[in-house]
Amino acid sequence: MQDSFLKDGERIDDLQRNGYRIIQNPQCFCFGIDAVLLSAFAFASDGEKVLDLGTGTGIVPILMSARYPGARFTGLEIQPKMAEMASRSVVLNGLPDKIEIVEGDIKKASEIFGAAAFDVVTANPPYMNENHGLKNPSEPKAIARHEILCTLGDVLKASAACLKTGGKLFMVHRPHRLAEIIEKMKMYRLEPKVIRMVHPHEDEEAKMVLIQAVLGGGSWLKVEKPLIIYDSEGNYKKKIHDIYEG
Amino acid sequence: MQDSFLKDGERIDDLQRNGYRIIQNPQCFCFGIDAVLLSAFAFASDGEKVLDLGTGTGIVPILMSARYPGARFTGLEIQPKMAEMASRSVVLNGLPDKIEIVEGDIKKASEIFGAAAFDVVTANPPYMNENHGLKNPSEPKAIARHEILCTLGDVLKASAACLKTGGKLFMVHRPHRLAEIIEKMKMYRLEPKVIRMVHPHEDEEAKMVLIQAVLGGGSWLKVEKPLIIYDSEGNYKKKIHDIYEG
Repeated sequence: MQDSFLKDGERIDDLQRNGYRIIQNPQCFCFGIDAVLLSAFAFASDGEKVLDLGTGTGIVPILMSARYPGARFTGLEIQPKMAEMASRSVVLNGLPDKIEIVEGDIKKASEIFGAAAFDVVTANPPYMNENHGLKNPSEPKAIARHEILCTLGDVLKASAACLKTGGKLFMVHRPHRLAEIIEKMKMYRLEPKVIRMVHPHEDEEAKMVLIQAVLGGGSWLKVEKPLIIYDSEGNYKKKIHDIYEG
Repeated sequence: MQDSFLKDGERIDDLQRNGYRIIQNPQCFCFGIDAVLLSAFAFASDGEKVLDLGTGTGIVPILMSARYPGARFTGLEIQPKMAEMASRSVVLNGLPDKIEIVEGDIKKASEIFGAAAFDVVTANPPYMNENHGLKNPSEPKAIARHEILCTLGDVLKASAACLKTGGKLFMVHRPHRLAEIIEKMKMYRLEPKVIRMVHPHEDEEAKMVLIQAVLGGGSWLKVEKPLIIYDSEGNYKKKIHDIYEG
């Protein structure tokens, strides 16, 4: 049954969580540790509605639904093939009553779903804003990594439009754009409340940043303890295992 | 000779660096680890002019002059007694040709020194913007800790006015105000370039943040490896010793 589920170039990976699996196509785009860290950083209460902007393989709602079975998830994805593949992963895991994948443009999210329709938004947007010299800007990998179809500003504007006042945005991004992220969040009334820096090793600069912002929140930011990925011998630190499995 | 240098309540502390010492009055305000970290985070080249906004005891220019003997330092301090005490510390260390202490208001810095007169600005401003309920807002300790005589915006505006284009601001502040700091820096064309989070212990949230911004700089931020102050046994970590002594 599973094989008939797969298209050319696709494979099924075990997520080692709730027995969940995910369909991926390595030629298109596979999820990374950033999506795993985001799904562990974010949280949702029972009954809350969660929107994942640019859901790709659907990895963030699928991992979050294992942790927060009482929440309802929507994944928005602009690329038809990715959206269709993510939908099959949802079916594969028996989650159609908990996760809905919708094909559409982040820039039109509040038209698609209505304004202020969500309690939580998650986003693992393209990191790179230098698109010159891209050989194949229409490739799924390029679209996932570069701001070709949506910019940081588009993602934040859509998040602010889709969230209820007091609703939370959880985002993973690159530290080199943190000043711009904070400036633009404030522009859209998304107040940064929690930041966690992710360092590959304890003696290395941050390579990822996790941010929680609250729509209309008050001005008080907590910078959590750093998240160190590898120990001195190059193995995943226990805490990373905890984040994934705990 | 030294004793005649001191006024009631003052003491001389050894800075354990270049044989330098500093006059402090514990009833007024003594420098903290934040000033030491700032003086190690900041840097200046030979011949550069450095302005310390709200210099207090003069600790930042005195420590920096030991590290960068080819630079010239100016400390601006609004409280006459503090400015006079800092001037005596400069004389005590034989540094009058390298450090000048000027009594005056941060808000008038660019009038006092002229616009774009400095290559580097350092600032360890008051952290707290909740001034209600302060018993003695005219006390030196309150003035150093609370935004009574100058706000964050005043300090950033003065920094931007005093710096040449491409000049650097080095500031130490509290993480809970980081979003506001970044937003206001950008407002004054001070582009955040380097951030270092300071955590008391590796499992604790950040309690201080060191920021380098460049006037008119391009948008690219580096988040350095975290600075952890104490090891698991409560002793200063070696790196902190290095920062102070190295």
